Amino acid sequence: VQTAILLYPGLTALDAIGPYDVLSRLPGMEMVFVAARTGEQRTDQGTCALVADATLDEVTGPDVVVVPGGFGVRSILADDAHLDWVRAVHEGTTWTTSVCTGALLLGAAGLLDGVAATTHWASYDHLAGFGARPTAERVVEVGRVVTAAGVSAGIDMALRLCAHLQGDDVARAIQLSIEYDPQPPFDTGAPHKAPAELVELLRGIVAEQEAAYS
Amino acid sequence: VQTAILLYPGLTALDAIGPYDVLSRLPGMEMVFVAARTGEQRTDQGTCALVADATLDEVTGPDVVVVPGGFGVRSILADDAHLDWVRAVHEGTTWTTSVCTGALLLGAAGLLDGVAATTHWASYDHLAGFGARPTAERVVEVGRVVTAAGVSAGIDMALRLCAHLQGDDVARAIQLSIEYDPQPPFDTGAPHKAPAELVELLRGIVAEQEAAYS
Repeated sequence: VQTAILLYPGLTALDAIGPYDVLSRLPGMEMVFVAARTGEQRTDQGTCALVADATLDEVTGPDVVVVPGGFGVRSILADDAHLDWVRAVHEGTTWTTSVCTGALLLGAAGLLDGVAATTHWASYDHLAGFGARPTAERVVEVGRVVTAAGVSAGIDMALRLCAHLQGDDVARAIQLSIEYDPQPPFDTGAPHKAPAELVELLRGIVAEQEAAYS
Repeated sequence: VQTAILLYPGLTALDAIGPYDVLSRLPGMEMVFVAARTGEQRTDQGTCALVADATLDEVTGPDVVVVPGGFGVRSILADDAHLDWVRAVHEGTTWTTSVCTGALLLGAAGLLDGVAATTHWASYDHLAGFGARPTAERVVEVGRVVTAAGVSAGIDMALRLCAHLQGDDVARAIQLSIEYDPQPPFDTGAPHKAPAELVELLRGIVAEQEAAYS
């Protein structure tokens, strides 16, 4: 059983590593980081690099696919190599998943047309542009397609996948092994919980950073 | 203002990337991954690699230090290069921190003698061996030394550091930007919340994996 996590320049590190550190604890699960080219992939903050060990051509039949988000996703949304790979592997997956703006790649590949899905809260409109129905839930499952909200939501999604793949007890054990008993010091992790001016401030910052990648 | 995150073979990826993806969003914060050697550092699951951009010698005055955990930490607990570096940079830090079993390195360096601290729940006894007083809290702050519980606790710790460094509003904005509104599908993220047999099962697995690294 194999999980492939897609890497590309400008991804968000935690989008990839949250699901990695959960799914990699599943007994018998083989993990592979895949990218257009092997080697270092700088993340969207520039000071972090994750390493791809396989090229897209080399990963043809993963059981689980995870597409992380990040500002850099915009540069692959119209790239045939990435779109063809997502469409091809989706034919054979048990679960095709995304975290944050990774959902935009699933959308661009045509997987979300008419489908309820989620992404980072600041990208609902962009997601809707691919025919998806943006949904403000932390994890949205429609058939084999599972989309998670922004960045940290990949951890919650991956624990759900563990339960689907190997049962609730295994998922509970993995939650305990990563001591996932979250205690954020504030309660502003979703737009409806945060002051409106903070939400608007961040929308502006996101738009600026997206522009830098366009 | 600089944050240095220590890498070494056999670290746990999420221990490092949780704090990275929070602290790297602080305005003006320079992030650097540091290790004995630059380049790829394989994490404890083997299928993931993070990249160190600087050697220990090159990072002499970080304001914040983060020591992640992982089974591989055991191989550096008696290594003078790592111990000397931790002691030297601690002289000048604003915050010296650890996630999970990263606390063992702080302990081995003599920073936790008589001090309340936390680590992964399966390593309390090991931590006590360095004179620390193991504490079952998610984040423990004693002066400039902040220790976080297992793996995922680094996210909560890093948000607290953001608040200390740049105020509550900035920390709240970062929480919203990573959409950290945790909704784990189960509630077994701490030993006191999990069935006793699950806790014992995992203690056995941890002991086996630690032995493989000793």
